[in-house]
Amino acid sequence: MRLTRLLAPAASSNLVDRLHSVHTKSDPARGPFIDRLLSSHLREHIGERVRLAGWLHNLRPLSQVSFVLLRDRAGVTQIVAEDKELREWVSKLPAESVLEVEGLVTAEGRATNGVEVHEPVIRLITASTSTPPIELQRPVLKEQPPTILDHAAVALRHPPRRAVLEISAAAIAGFRSALEELEFTEINTPKIVGSTTETGANVFVVDYFGRDAYLAQSPQFYKQIMVGVLERVYETGPVFRAEPHNTARHLAEYVSLDAEMGFIRDHSDVMSVVTASVAGMVDGIRTAAAPAVDLLGVILPDVPDIIPELDFEAAQQLIEDATGESVVGEPDLAPSHERWLGEWAQRERESDFVFVTGYPMSKRPFYTYPDPDRPSRSKSFDLLFRGLEIVTGGQRLHLYEDYLAALRSRDEDPSSYEGYLEAFRYGMPPHGGFAIGLERFVARVVRAPNVRDATLFPRDINRLLP
Amino acid sequence: MRLTRLLAPAASSNLVDRLHSVHTKSDPARGPFIDRLLSSHLREHIGERVRLAGWLHNLRPLSQVSFVLLRDRAGVTQIVAEDKELREWVSKLPAESVLEVEGLVTAEGRATNGVEVHEPVIRLITASTSTPPIELQRPVLKEQPPTILDHAAVALRHPPRRAVLEISAAAIAGFRSALEELEFTEINTPKIVGSTTETGANVFVVDYFGRDAYLAQSPQFYKQIMVGVLERVYETGPVFRAEPHNTARHLAEYVSLDAEMGFIRDHSDVMSVVTASVAGMVDGIRTAAAPAVDLLGVILPDVPDIIPELDFEAAQQLIEDATGESVVGEPDLAPSHERWLGEWAQRERESDFVFVTGYPMSKRPFYTYPDPDRPSRSKSFDLLFRGLEIVTGGQRLHLYEDYLAALRSRDEDPSSYEGYLEAFRYGMPPHGGFAIGLERFVARVVRAPNVRDATLFPRDINRLLP
Repeated sequence: MRLTRLLAPAASSNLVDRLHSVHTKSDPARGPFIDRLLSSHLREHIGERVRLAGWLHNLRPLSQVSFVLLRDRAGVTQIVAEDKELREWVSKLPAESVLEVEGLVTAEGRATNGVEVHEPVIRLITASTSTPPIELQRPVLKEQPPTILDHAAVALRHPPRRAVLEISAAAIAGFRSALEELEFTEINTPKIVGSTTETGANVFVVDYFGRDAYLAQSPQFYKQIMVGVLERVYETGPVFRAEPHNTARHLAEYVSLDAEMGFIRDHSDVMSVVTASVAGMVDGIRTAAAPAVDLLGVILPDVPDIIPELDFEAAQQLIEDATGESVVGEPDLAPSHERWLGEWAQRERESDFVFVTGYPMSKRPFYTYPDPDRPSRSKSFDLLFRGLEIVTGGQRLHLYEDYLAALRSRDEDPSSYEGYLEAFRYGMPPHGGFAIGLERFVARVVRAPNVRDATLFPRDINRLLP
Repeated sequence: MRLTRLLAPAASSNLVDRLHSVHTKSDPARGPFIDRLLSSHLREHIGERVRLAGWLHNLRPLSQVSFVLLRDRAGVTQIVAEDKELREWVSKLPAESVLEVEGLVTAEGRATNGVEVHEPVIRLITASTSTPPIELQRPVLKEQPPTILDHAAVALRHPPRRAVLEISAAAIAGFRSALEELEFTEINTPKIVGSTTETGANVFVVDYFGRDAYLAQSPQFYKQIMVGVLERVYETGPVFRAEPHNTARHLAEYVSLDAEMGFIRDHSDVMSVVTASVAGMVDGIRTAAAPAVDLLGVILPDVPDIIPELDFEAAQQLIEDATGESVVGEPDLAPSHERWLGEWAQRERESDFVFVTGYPMSKRPFYTYPDPDRPSRSKSFDLLFRGLEIVTGGQRLHLYEDYLAALRSRDEDPSSYEGYLEAFRYGMPPHGGFAIGLERFVARVVRAPNVRDATLFPRDINRLLP
């Protein structure tokens, strides 16, 4: 550790400028940023004096010493302050003040990560203006969900909350890896669209230079068009639904992990890719977010090579037989039915996942491919993960005339879908795809009761801030 | 090559169902999808009969044979049809029909990829309904830009256009790799926001359950908040600007590659990360999009370890001295000045890139960190790539009282920034960040004259479709 650029205690805005005065061109071997060690690397430096930087997470004053808990992005370090003047100075700092600490790394079996820092010199980088509205030092936040969401800028700093974000990032990365492996190409489709996808319901309207435009409810039309260009495409991006219900599983804006692929044999090829994608997400979390998994005590699901599969009607029959509730013949599964099927898959198949296939055409969008053996049913599926639908997908129509017929049978005017239908005029292969709701998936992984717990800054009918 | 699931010629919507009838559970070793070989792998199968699938790219009927050019996502294959009946049948198919071809791979030095396919059996998967509105078989499209954009669903299939998309995907992946390497965490911030970023000008208004909301012009506020949580964050996603000018370098929606990092010494640490990011993007293109680079004859830029840097005023002086134009004292650089500086960097520093630093505070947003030695100038920068600004970044204010002062000096009410300012109340380290405009970067890489040439489905004041 080089300690050549030590700072005097300071809380003024001149700090960085004084830092600057000793700054020379970045050493490419060392990389940029203030020269400091992360908490996770301390164990490699026992017996050395090092420099740390982070937030004042907590202060535990005892009779002879004070434990200063310093949080950085990798964890929390216990700093042992013995000097009376220092203990007094620190006791006056509000939580979340940003500190730089230089001290001696010492093995200490009782500390959480096996080390603590002794003989500290502590310098103030930025003082909190007051005590934060969220008590971040508690293992479990005691504030109510609305307070936590209102103060997201602070509440997200809570280590378990941050761990969820790390798991989320790792899941997206794992999704991308799995699809890149299968030679899918990433695309970025427009979010401001001139015609509504799906049904036109629950769509946000944008004032587009004086005209009405809409926020994309999914990249559906565009990803299908792109099958004609790149054959296999994926996208990770925001989608928007003006969801009028305030539930634990709906958001007005969420991250959709979409894929679409050509030259499939049928929807079961799509299901194979779903399986690979979900396995990639779990692998991504296991490898890239291991500390977060540990911190939260998450038990990651096993993704079987072949995920158990239930036909829609067979699933309804199972539920009816078990619960006595009359469900056979209903056009869709209720959330309680999905939960029941999740428990069934766990119990009977030892699987956290179960595919339900063959949903009724009546509940699926117009581009859905019907099952020719039973035309009221579709070549589509949902994937339930621990009893919650996290993926919807299926085979799509690929013939232009089938699109015209499907739209007309739903009293829709094909001319309002011109730019989309053009792809089908000029040769489209059999294709299909799916969409994974990222927040739902992550909420299930960490067993959060509400999808908002897996969302940075949730948007719903009541919440637009922060 | 297994050829167990051969198809009869067919153009009906039952094709996939017949395919289905022979479908068994995917063989995990082989992966899903129709069993076929991509054009790029033909050379490894000379002397074998293989199955291909793709689009009828072109047909060249000669007196004794017809060359059927079949396009798949990897390239174009020349199929030699000698059979009279087959030649007649193919001659009636409109371009872009989807075909399956089974035939013998034969070495042929004169063919573009060194092989052609003989003794073909051709089956129709999907017929085009008519001749496409874009002549995709031409090496350079002859249609005018508005026609090309109107028919994007077809025009994007043109191999050079598709190559740009592949370069774009590789650039994003390279950006992510570079930042993951530096331990940045990916975030997804909301695109529907309750308060405007920047100035409030050029913002799209959304009807949000009866209230006004806005489309995010950048993830600026959120990525800064997240520095307090994860220290180093990045995002790749759409941003929205109601840009009233129809220029070759502006879009109403584009992909912004954003990063923000804490514990920096000053803006030059941010510039180091910009340099690493841009180098990662170029490396990404070089490794993941090599065929696209070849097809387009792109000469990739070298990203120097230290990109040349010019102070804003020194840059103005250079321009004034060279052109006689009076520019010193102007608050910003005009596009023509950026072009001049691009040529200067090329000529004097042999670099495609040049940083301009120290922009006047008056032209930078309120969160910009001033240079204490000359308070009218900022610790910010732009990166010019071949004479076009593709990155803007800098150090940000980090003290709460500095934000209050900055907002008040611009006659802005701090209370409208409450959720954002909360992060600064509770301890923020010195930090900074940057944003790269993906489409601008890609347009410069492929030397496209218009940023729309590097955009899937561009959005501007006149264009909302397709």
